[in-house]
Amino acid sequence: MIQVYTGNGKGKTTAALGLALRTAGAGLKVYIAQFVKKGGYHELNSLEKIKNIKIEQFGRGCFINKKPGKEDILLARKGLERVRGALAEKKYKLLVLDEINIAMKLKLLKAGEVLKLLKSIPDETEVVLTGRGAPEGILKIADLVSEMKEIKHYYHKGILARRGIEF
Amino acid sequence: MIQVYTGNGKGKTTAALGLALRTAGAGLKVYIAQFVKKGGYHELNSLEKIKNIKIEQFGRGCFINKKPGKEDILLARKGLERVRGALAEKKYKLLVLDEINIAMKLKLLKAGEVLKLLKSIPDETEVVLTGRGAPEGILKIADLVSEMKEIKHYYHKGILARRGIEF
Repeated sequence: MIQVYTGNGKGKTTAALGLALRTAGAGLKVYIAQFVKKGGYHELNSLEKIKNIKIEQFGRGCFINKKPGKEDILLARKGLERVRGALAEKKYKLLVLDEINIAMKLKLLKAGEVLKLLKSIPDETEVVLTGRGAPEGILKIADLVSEMKEIKHYYHKGILARRGIEF
Repeated sequence: MIQVYTGNGKGKTTAALGLALRTAGAGLKVYIAQFVKKGGYHELNSLEKIKNIKIEQFGRGCFINKKPGKEDILLARKGLERVRGALAEKKYKLLVLDEINIAMKLKLLKAGEVLKLLKSIPDETEVVLTGRGAPEGILKIADLVSEMKEIKHYYHKGILARRGIEF
């Protein structure tokens, strides 16, 4: 099954992590690939304590004020390769491809390539793709799509990202 | 700050749990009160392993085919009382009131009572309320509202709740 958490609201990555918590708690294995992101997320400290969850990052952080470069593309490709490897291991119940929608939006990955991978996934494996701006083709083949829609956000009141809440 | 995760889509409770993971990973304490729910959620197994997170349930499970009774009201009130107690302890950075919107919808709790509690919460404490059908008054005072909107759901294809994914 393919799930997509997209939209401009808060809760996409955290929903995927909460699902990982549930899957791991049921004694099933989880692989999380975080695209674009790099370090600095405190959930990593908690996740490391949980058996059944493996998490890897394939990014250099955010792209505010700079364009993604060749290294970002290489890292994203490496991530997709690792996801293919995790699939081949056949031991994971849940694969989380965190911010992969952003990676496609930034053209670090081709949507066609991701689609091809998704189509190869067996029914009993759950895959969650997160990030704003999921491509039309991904939404089309997804079994579940939740749009996290911003109705109100304290950013607009000038509140900055806070430790333990936004990162 | 008051955050509300509402709407008919997947990801409300899991987003709150993922946030709890992040907050706990930053070394800050989290209290989670689950209203209406009882047992059966595999995330509990994982959460128990994480230092800094305390979780309690105040419900008897879902209300399919039955009306909530006096005991459900008593349990929900007890939950709200425990949240007040957790606030008074002043050690929690994050309070998650999981499914409290449902508890209000089912009239186990009065929205006015919850509003009064929310208004007493200091700025440095983060509170997340989850569940469908958040009352207007709650949305009005919230600092952040994310609507998890169902765009597509495999339930409609006849897929039932699955171990490690839905529970």
